[in-house]
Amino acid sequence: MKIDFLTLFPEMFQGVLGSSILQKAQEKEAVRFDVINFRAFSDNKHQTVDDYPYGGGAGMVLKPQPVFDAVEKLTADTDAKPRIILVCPQGERFTQKKAEELAEEEHLMFICGHYEGYDERIREHLVTDEISIGDFVLTGGELPAMMIADSVVRLLPGVLGKEASHMEDSFSTGLLEHPHYTRPADYKGLKVPETLLSGNHAKINEWRNKESIRRTFLRRPDLLENYPLTDEQRKWISEWENE
Amino acid sequence: MKIDFLTLFPEMFQGVLGSSILQKAQEKEAVRFDVINFRAFSDNKHQTVDDYPYGGGAGMVLKPQPVFDAVEKLTADTDAKPRIILVCPQGERFTQKKAEELAEEEHLMFICGHYEGYDERIREHLVTDEISIGDFVLTGGELPAMMIADSVVRLLPGVLGKEASHMEDSFSTGLLEHPHYTRPADYKGLKVPETLLSGNHAKINEWRNKESIRRTFLRRPDLLENYPLTDEQRKWISEWENE
Repeated sequence: MKIDFLTLFPEMFQGVLGSSILQKAQEKEAVRFDVINFRAFSDNKHQTVDDYPYGGGAGMVLKPQPVFDAVEKLTADTDAKPRIILVCPQGERFTQKKAEELAEEEHLMFICGHYEGYDERIREHLVTDEISIGDFVLTGGELPAMMIADSVVRLLPGVLGKEASHMEDSFSTGLLEHPHYTRPADYKGLKVPETLLSGNHAKINEWRNKESIRRTFLRRPDLLENYPLTDEQRKWISEWENE
Repeated sequence: MKIDFLTLFPEMFQGVLGSSILQKAQEKEAVRFDVINFRAFSDNKHQTVDDYPYGGGAGMVLKPQPVFDAVEKLTADTDAKPRIILVCPQGERFTQKKAEELAEEEHLMFICGHYEGYDERIREHLVTDEISIGDFVLTGGELPAMMIADSVVRLLPGVLGKEASHMEDSFSTGLLEHPHYTRPADYKGLKVPETLLSGNHAKINEWRNKESIRRTFLRRPDLLENYPLTDEQRKWISEWENE
């Protein structure tokens, strides 16, 4: 997979792309990253890429020309049609399902705005996916773009070692994870539940399943709506409802 | 404000904390960042901070001791009680409202896990806030922690210049933003709507308001449920519903 980041702040990327799983994925040649300063595609000597909004108002707007030209240049040598992704509050909410969908692609390209709005023609005629990571305001699209890249790259074949793959649990089972404990069994008086120390695996599995259902019931009841609960699990829930 | 990041991957932070608004906020002394490798608080010569889960299973679990000790050390010199934040899929969903709440604090501390689960005693006895940034799996808590920090720091007094403050619009009005356009008025045949070129500010404002309502209706109808619509805006919506 190839992933391009179009940004005005290329220095934000190196530390993240050069660490941990994203670095390992490059070493394994599962992914290639390019960070492109699209200021280089400005058509004027001041290298500006934004301008005042038509109709007036505060703030600046990214011009179509540098972004269209950058994308044209970056896709000139390839037949694969890239997914061109804009991160913005108006987009569809990012989910694990979307990460899985993007992991099937050969080429992703993130357009990272910063402060500015985007000229609507970029959105309408260039971008294939508008993605939101939530109802909050950020300074730029760089951090969400890196985050989406992380969630996608870790799904590529061969990238994840066994040590990390258990993290998938929360979303592959459709429930929140049960609590975890490790040594010591007593940390300054805070104790690990006895069941987990019992060595009785049937009991441990039941405890974990019950705690997973309990946590989901308390924190994310929406996830239970489509979850195929057993009769016993339903009984637990109605007991908690009566508490 | 003081913000501490406890992490095993300190090299991920420099590029982000040293760029753009986060850098300017440090220069203006509105915020001070510390990135702490909590491996330094390990109590053994191999500097391990995780261990196998009680009860068996794949994956490793962060031990309570290095995290409790790091927090104790970092809060020893201060009276202010920090908000100790864990980013995890089980947490409450991060929103602009939460960013505003955290912006009132003096001291935030992010515990960034990576691959591993957290020993439940960290969650129960140390952490004050569990925050989720969405239903997807990431390799670690570093990117979400930086993102939350960005959304909070830009709210601190004096941090944002005028050039960036218009970005607030989407969430302060409760609607999605209207489309933006800048020069040229005709880019390779793609034209700017004529109203925006008219110089008629009453018409421009009406166009923007209508497009803002339209976009919200099409993409995020949930935001309209609590929005005080005028009679005219209601009429627009019922026209779109009939289309």
